[in-house]
Amino acid sequence: MVAGHELTSTRSPRVKGARRLAKRAFRQRARRFLAEGPQAVGEALTVPGTLVELYATAEAEARQSAIIDAAERGGIPVHRVSGEVMTELAQTVTPQGLLGVCRFVDVELAEVPPARLVTVLAHVRDPGNAGTVLRTSDAAGCDAVVFTDASVDPYNGKCVRASAGSLFHLPVVVGPPIEGVVAELRGRGLRVLAADGGGTATLDDALDAGTLTAPTAWIFGNEAWGLPEAVLELADEVVRVPIHGRAESLNLATAAAVCLYASARSHR
Amino acid sequence: MVAGHELTSTRSPRVKGARRLAKRAFRQRARRFLAEGPQAVGEALTVPGTLVELYATAEAEARQSAIIDAAERGGIPVHRVSGEVMTELAQTVTPQGLLGVCRFVDVELAEVPPARLVTVLAHVRDPGNAGTVLRTSDAAGCDAVVFTDASVDPYNGKCVRASAGSLFHLPVVVGPPIEGVVAELRGRGLRVLAADGGGTATLDDALDAGTLTAPTAWIFGNEAWGLPEAVLELADEVVRVPIHGRAESLNLATAAAVCLYASARSHR
Repeated sequence: MVAGHELTSTRSPRVKGARRLAKRAFRQRARRFLAEGPQAVGEALTVPGTLVELYATAEAEARQSAIIDAAERGGIPVHRVSGEVMTELAQTVTPQGLLGVCRFVDVELAEVPPARLVTVLAHVRDPGNAGTVLRTSDAAGCDAVVFTDASVDPYNGKCVRASAGSLFHLPVVVGPPIEGVVAELRGRGLRVLAADGGGTATLDDALDAGTLTAPTAWIFGNEAWGLPEAVLELADEVVRVPIHGRAESLNLATAAAVCLYASARSHR
Repeated sequence: MVAGHELTSTRSPRVKGARRLAKRAFRQRARRFLAEGPQAVGEALTVPGTLVELYATAEAEARQSAIIDAAERGGIPVHRVSGEVMTELAQTVTPQGLLGVCRFVDVELAEVPPARLVTVLAHVRDPGNAGTVLRTSDAAGCDAVVFTDASVDPYNGKCVRASAGSLFHLPVVVGPPIEGVVAELRGRGLRVLAADGGGTATLDDALDAGTLTAPTAWIFGNEAWGLPEAVLELADEVVRVPIHGRAESLNLATAAAVCLYASARSHR
């Protein structure tokens, strides 16, 4: 049972405070973000100290009682809200009635344990793509995902949703410039590969040469224009996914999936 | 130069006729669909007899003169429209000022030339996912893509856009029931693999066993619930992409990319 009365006004200071977290500037000031829906909230609950507040409609309270009970047992305030307030808070067209306010979960690159496979997002601008790459990195067994300063904010609502919980599964590093990331990962013994359609070697070449058996950091670039020359120059090798048919290119998330799974297989 | 006056009324019979093609029922009656933006229109032009009519704003006419000239040289009527009419016709928030009416390009499965790699979409409902799988199939060198009767319409505007031109690149088959498709492809000597998270063999197992060196048809299922039991039973083998980390699953398009590229590599 949720304690207290239902919040019905979209103007209540509490609701307005949570709603602000849809904006990056407010997220960064509060170091908090919104996790929407039962999956994300359930995953946030698995990381102690992450979920700080939960909003639920009466309907969600009935349907998602396991999540709400777990939150209450953890001493997390649960606020009952009207459907109208949930619509105001949620960023999806069909909110599922459950929305959590979470503390940032990112870590410093130096805190990431020894790694064999790392994803680095450089210049990825679409939050849906970034979230899908995060999910795929998790599935492929990556040890960490780095969002460089030129990439989208992983706490963007679309990115959180597209990650399907993976934001809470593996170390995520946010905001460092690419140069320092490459230097640090190379210092740790990782081979740095840039995935770019202009690469001289194909992924098949890299597999044939045994390149992918080494611990690897993959750098993925912008959806439309790939990676800038300066980033390509930082890499040990520039690798392209071969295009066997007549497509001009792959989309970012599918190219990343092919590269990361090629590495995962080579490591096993 | 576009002949004739500019269409400025969203009520003109011509504009209303084209606009109707946003609806599946009207597309099927006319066996025509809409291709939006310079990339899709440019690709449509490469398939003789496909583009039947072109709508362009004055701005697009200036920027995309190569496409418009090619259409006019091919005897394709080009209609200048106002920005308002283009907004009415286009299905994107930021229409790029160019929209083509195209004849259906699909072929019968029997017409597809001998094939070594075929994608079969069963129960894929999201047009964006379907279009991305079509694009990925093209990139991976598939010989054909089959949209079964339980899948989304490939002529849906979102699917056409997500395919990034690939709808015009390789044979696409639309509408047959899955049972007949599997029987036909098996009869042609293809091994039929169903991609499903519940598969007993992983993709690594299939690679290790040399399964993927055979000509292969991959069946991909629904975004949320995979493939129904009846379809799994039709397949020679059910294969899952291994999840090495803590993600529950991969999304459909990334899983398809990993499977199709594993086949492409095994075939080379």
